[in-house]
Amino acid sequence: MTHKSETSYGYFDDDNKEFVITSPYTPLPWINYLGNDGFYGLISNTAGGYCFYKDAKFRRLTRYRYNNVPMDSGGRYFYINDGGVIWNPGGRPSETQLDFYQCRHGLGYSKFIARKNQLQAELTVTIPLQMNAEVYKLKLTNTSKQHKRIGLFSFIEWCLWNAQTDGENFQRNLSTGEVEIDGNFLFHKTEYRERRNHYAFFTCNKDIDGFDTDRDAFIGMYNGFERPQAVDKNQSSNSVAHGWSPIASHHHKLDLAPGHSEEIVFMLGYCELEQTNKWQALNQINQSPARDLFTHVDTSQKFDHQCKRLRSYWQACLSICQVETPDVKFNRSVNIWNQYQNMVTFNMSRSASYYESGIGRGMGFRDSHQDTIGFTHIAPTAVRQRLLDLSATQKQDGSAYHQYQPLTKKGNADIGGNFNDDPMWMILGTANYIKETGDWSILDEAIPFDDNSQAESHFEHLRRAFYHIANKLGPHGLPLIGRADWNDCLNLNCYSNDPNESFQTTEHKQDSVAESLMIAGQFVLYGQEFVRLCEQLDKLQEAKIAQAHIDNMVKAVEDHGWDGQWFLRAYDANGNAIGSHKNEEGQIFIESQGFCVMAGIGIENGKAQSALDSVEKHLACDFGIVLQQPAFSRYHIELGEISSYPPGYKENAGIFCHNNPWICISETMLGRADKAMAYYQRINPIYLQDLQQTHKTEPYVYSQMIAGKDAATPGQAKNSWLTGTAAWSYYAAVQYILGVRPDYHGLIIAPCIPNEWAGFSVKRKFRQAEYHIRVHNHATDKRGLYVDGQFVEGQQIEYTKYQQTHKVDYYKSA
Amino acid sequence: MTHKSETSYGYFDDDNKEFVITSPYTPLPWINYLGNDGFYGLISNTAGGYCFYKDAKFRRLTRYRYNNVPMDSGGRYFYINDGGVIWNPGGRPSETQLDFYQCRHGLGYSKFIARKNQLQAELTVTIPLQMNAEVYKLKLTNTSKQHKRIGLFSFIEWCLWNAQTDGENFQRNLSTGEVEIDGNFLFHKTEYRERRNHYAFFTCNKDIDGFDTDRDAFIGMYNGFERPQAVDKNQSSNSVAHGWSPIASHHHKLDLAPGHSEEIVFMLGYCELEQTNKWQALNQINQSPARDLFTHVDTSQKFDHQCKRLRSYWQACLSICQVETPDVKFNRSVNIWNQYQNMVTFNMSRSASYYESGIGRGMGFRDSHQDTIGFTHIAPTAVRQRLLDLSATQKQDGSAYHQYQPLTKKGNADIGGNFNDDPMWMILGTANYIKETGDWSILDEAIPFDDNSQAESHFEHLRRAFYHIANKLGPHGLPLIGRADWNDCLNLNCYSNDPNESFQTTEHKQDSVAESLMIAGQFVLYGQEFVRLCEQLDKLQEAKIAQAHIDNMVKAVEDHGWDGQWFLRAYDANGNAIGSHKNEEGQIFIESQGFCVMAGIGIENGKAQSALDSVEKHLACDFGIVLQQPAFSRYHIELGEISSYPPGYKENAGIFCHNNPWICISETMLGRADKAMAYYQRINPIYLQDLQQTHKTEPYVYSQMIAGKDAATPGQAKNSWLTGTAAWSYYAAVQYILGVRPDYHGLIIAPCIPNEWAGFSVKRKFRQAEYHIRVHNHATDKRGLYVDGQFVEGQQIEYTKYQQTHKVDYYKSA
Repeated sequence: MTHKSETSYGYFDDDNKEFVITSPYTPLPWINYLGNDGFYGLISNTAGGYCFYKDAKFRRLTRYRYNNVPMDSGGRYFYINDGGVIWNPGGRPSETQLDFYQCRHGLGYSKFIARKNQLQAELTVTIPLQMNAEVYKLKLTNTSKQHKRIGLFSFIEWCLWNAQTDGENFQRNLSTGEVEIDGNFLFHKTEYRERRNHYAFFTCNKDIDGFDTDRDAFIGMYNGFERPQAVDKNQSSNSVAHGWSPIASHHHKLDLAPGHSEEIVFMLGYCELEQTNKWQALNQINQSPARDLFTHVDTSQKFDHQCKRLRSYWQACLSICQVETPDVKFNRSVNIWNQYQNMVTFNMSRSASYYESGIGRGMGFRDSHQDTIGFTHIAPTAVRQRLLDLSATQKQDGSAYHQYQPLTKKGNADIGGNFNDDPMWMILGTANYIKETGDWSILDEAIPFDDNSQAESHFEHLRRAFYHIANKLGPHGLPLIGRADWNDCLNLNCYSNDPNESFQTTEHKQDSVAESLMIAGQFVLYGQEFVRLCEQLDKLQEAKIAQAHIDNMVKAVEDHGWDGQWFLRAYDANGNAIGSHKNEEGQIFIESQGFCVMAGIGIENGKAQSALDSVEKHLACDFGIVLQQPAFSRYHIELGEISSYPPGYKENAGIFCHNNPWICISETMLGRADKAMAYYQRINPIYLQDLQQTHKTEPYVYSQMIAGKDAATPGQAKNSWLTGTAAWSYYAAVQYILGVRPDYHGLIIAPCIPNEWAGFSVKRKFRQAEYHIRVHNHATDKRGLYVDGQFVEGQQIEYTKYQQTHKVDYYKSA
Repeated sequence: MTHKSETSYGYFDDDNKEFVITSPYTPLPWINYLGNDGFYGLISNTAGGYCFYKDAKFRRLTRYRYNNVPMDSGGRYFYINDGGVIWNPGGRPSETQLDFYQCRHGLGYSKFIARKNQLQAELTVTIPLQMNAEVYKLKLTNTSKQHKRIGLFSFIEWCLWNAQTDGENFQRNLSTGEVEIDGNFLFHKTEYRERRNHYAFFTCNKDIDGFDTDRDAFIGMYNGFERPQAVDKNQSSNSVAHGWSPIASHHHKLDLAPGHSEEIVFMLGYCELEQTNKWQALNQINQSPARDLFTHVDTSQKFDHQCKRLRSYWQACLSICQVETPDVKFNRSVNIWNQYQNMVTFNMSRSASYYESGIGRGMGFRDSHQDTIGFTHIAPTAVRQRLLDLSATQKQDGSAYHQYQPLTKKGNADIGGNFNDDPMWMILGTANYIKETGDWSILDEAIPFDDNSQAESHFEHLRRAFYHIANKLGPHGLPLIGRADWNDCLNLNCYSNDPNESFQTTEHKQDSVAESLMIAGQFVLYGQEFVRLCEQLDKLQEAKIAQAHIDNMVKAVEDHGWDGQWFLRAYDANGNAIGSHKNEEGQIFIESQGFCVMAGIGIENGKAQSALDSVEKHLACDFGIVLQQPAFSRYHIELGEISSYPPGYKENAGIFCHNNPWICISETMLGRADKAMAYYQRINPIYLQDLQQTHKTEPYVYSQMIAGKDAATPGQAKNSWLTGTAAWSYYAAVQYILGVRPDYHGLIIAPCIPNEWAGFSVKRKFRQAEYHIRVHNHATDKRGLYVDGQFVEGQQIEYTKYQQTHKVDYYKSA
């Protein structure tokens, strides 16, 4: 069944799991990600973007200019000169209006189909599995009645490896660029002679008629990307770059008879070499690894085979959990795009998107943990490694580096630590991993601390995370906030009045008493999980002591964290309540409502319901739930960055989507299914196709932020792709709305679905078995769980009992 | 007398002290600097570039994209839509071919004269004296017989103040932009609500017909600078920026009758406000300072008056030293462009040019000191302050921060210190200042250390600088090099094999024995100056002890620093000689030859001559003197960054112009005038007009580097404007070739001029007097010095004897 949902700029092709973009001129560049094994590319709907190896800052392969004029300048460009008419299969950067244009963003690949003057181009771009290369297949077909002589020019611009210095240190950089050329192989070897053990190359499988490696020779100093002078002249100049800006461009002169086609495969590859194996002669690089790599795709058949492998891979990934509900958009999101985005957030954290420049930061500690909850079922092995890598950036005292660089896996000293929520996320990630896999061995892994190479068990790391909070309480018995909790911009200890200071890294007040209700809820929620882990490990005394800390925390929240209608957000450095009706601005915040209710606080005494009703009343708006109200109209030095944004944007009463699923989950805990679903849908881009001109970002992925009701541009989204929203929304949808939730001993079925649904089904591979689950809403005859027709007590399918494919039915009343 | 020296891209107009560029498409953008009181602009020959207040990193006003495609994108653009034909007075970014184009870079201003379809535009851009604003006067004249209706659009793009985060932190930046609009005044107030006490504005003196403040509204997401959509439509959209990219653009609809003109004055200004005075109403900025500022130029007459003031200012500056020699290029360089460049290097150090992005570094310690030697005679008060500012970044132990940020005047901790040549430059700067001014009080100023607020006299700072070397000697009694000496790229203690490390900032080996012959020479040269200072202050014991250290150093150089034909360069961390004929590569270096000879070492025993002969034999080439030979063909981990450049570029055997004048001065010390002059001319761009296509950089200013004989592109210059070459070349030309040299007690006349010169004259204001000096070469009758016709013993005009204008004659044999 194909769903082609038309929007003004494109539609979903669910059969092919593609989003089809029908204009090069989308409201913002709409991008896709390529690769998921360490080599990555970002590619826009006009083939803009760049690629890198592992680390977007330290190992950038191609150059990209953010926030440029025109927007989205630079990428993998193929220029066609057809009788003086110059165009690109991606629709840009050439300004020629095409007769037909389509960009199909699929899972790990993008495809461009374009036509001009009866010449058809089909360009497929992908990163094959386990390959350190972007590969391109370009097919040109002469659909006219005339013979065509075509000039074809490939083009990429090399980044000088370190993306940050590449854009800063020109007095050095403009003298360092080096290339080597051998036939079709155009090598980039800047700094290879000295400290680098890697080079890049651009090659193709058809003999070239010329090349360029010097940007000014190819483009011309004063031309733009839209009309390079070599393309204009229809002639390469065989330039050899010495410094300035090395590029790689192949020139093919193609003769196309009427009806005939030509296919060429290109590869932009990356090779690392052993020190002893770097050279084949004096200052001549060892080309073998590059030539070997290219043999995997050097024919169209091989290229197609790699595409097929990738498609099978994704088929397998997505087959682990497939749902069929009455809501086609829900299905599309949960079955395809949300899971795909989860892969991207897992791989990138917040490092490289069209809004994250890839040079500002590495992988976030809290982000990376949260991102695993949407991806563990797909890639448990990768998640296991990630959790242990993160564990190794924890310090002995239980605290953690806030970020680390993926290339070195070392904590980022520039950013530092003391974001006090960070360590508790380790428990979420690890518990979620064990529930999915049953792999308890992860707790026994011996892992060093960042500040002590003496390894301790991963369990011990979690224990220290727990006590890092338990032992750091403020005057109300609530957790000290440190630099900040989940809300990086609520800086209660910064007191910055110098605009050259970063709120994130500037030295904060020491010995401050500022406390966080968000961490309090988080501590209770994941502390309970820690207790469960202890119990499973038969560490009953440990569990008991921990539980006592948790009980105290619940009491502290009840006694000191309740404002009358909702949970407070914090106490500031002077001990004043934040997120209270007594405040002038910022009277109610979303985070503490979400985390306290998810932790179960106040569910029995009505506080939870009152808190969520207050969220609905004060924070919910047409485009989602805003972070707090009223928005800050002035700077509050005691609150920091949150009050630095214009009202309605980002943390200052924007819809910071990441936290919306917390409320969605909280609503399911109260059994309020319709509210939960309404919140789920409100920020899900797949439901927003009528708002595209307002929303602006890609309709197939979540954005970090949607402008709130106080903004000048309410409903306008920003910072798409890299957001905790992806994992949390998926987690909320599958584990709490559908209620299909892994636990230590089996799969729990506890749906909380809209009244209007008659039911839904889920195919779920879980541990050794596959379950075909059917949930029947408004059930009249039966109640409860049946596996293969047999009634099962409770809501859990115990995994030890099942090894095959099993039919599961769950009957519930409305 | 007008000298119009034609080159292919322009010519010198000496009468107007302008360089006239006749094509918008120069080999590289050819720029000018505006401002010299703290507010600065860089402006290319097509009006590209940006402006900033004091600090190019922390207080950038307009956005500029380095290394862009096309090169030089972004600036102050005025778009003219004349019946659908769109063009700019600067010739770009519009691609329309003009009927006439001229850019006149003058002293502190640039002027663009252009014509298309009988519409003439004359745009003058300047920063008036003591004003925090760029101002523009645009005159449009209809030279046709038809009435013209013109659409005029101004355009600048705001930088969000911090130029570094502006290009990195988009997930924040794209939500923060804020503007305020009131009539013609378009205010940029991003972050003003919170921590900033400054805003910028763009205004004009003629009522506008529309405006834009949102970049996408004005340019269009997918348009380039060459054709903004508002200009294309000939209609502004009155857009109000909320986040994204705020700009400022005025729209004027002009009716021009045949023969009629219209003049409009624009101002791009910057205001700082007191905390208590920031607002005129809730969230409405206090506009008064901006409106007050504009009153200074809000008519054409006032604008012209400011231009006149600036011209008078420069007339006065240059009148302090004017020369008349038989060599017109020498005169042009010394009288105009070299002095002008000295002003720029003094103000910028190495912080902001078209090669220095303004975000990588602040003001260099050693650079800033050296830059004063070309500027002290023009601006002694500013130099005094700079010397004391630098002194305050010295540490108690005599070492110094390598750089400081001009906005804060604090040492840059990111870069750190331990470049062991740094402190000795303090003595050069201070001695040179006292010789020019006779102001001994500078030595008594109480200045704190960077690591101790307890102030000590500036003399004590110099003393610690001296002993910082004297007490840090290696096994040969030569100075330890630390991180590096003047050659930042000779990293003897770094041993880096990680490409992600900076050679400059990576932790270096402690307790290394690596020694520098360059510092040895520097220590002797400026140590002798320190001794002279002590003697003048009657600190005879201090002088005697210091002299003993110097004598020891001379002996150490003679004993351990001589390779047989030239001076060694260094001993590495293993005690091996560097810059020796025994080395495989890098056998002879320029720096130690220059500094040892300038220090007088080996002049009496022939070593100096042998060293200079070796320089000529091994290092001199057609385009200048290369840094060392043979070039490094491979990476030498024990030498560091110097061996990381491709051969012939930068420190790896490039012509690193800064050190060429050291050889020139050294040659004058041996009396070899013709050799000195040949070296002087070889790197001076004013002599290179026939090489413009090879040389590429501006023909009116020095570049940091010219590719050497080993390079793929010998003779190609890079990194123009910000180079120690400017001050040193001027110093060499005036003080050593012409030999007109200030000293503590008067002006020394000691020329070393080419044999072919019959003589020359110099007008020199010095302390209380003005001297009209005439040097007679090949004198037959007379010998020596005559003041007002009276014979004077020796070569010095004692300043205490003269208060008026005096005629000086100096007679020398060939």
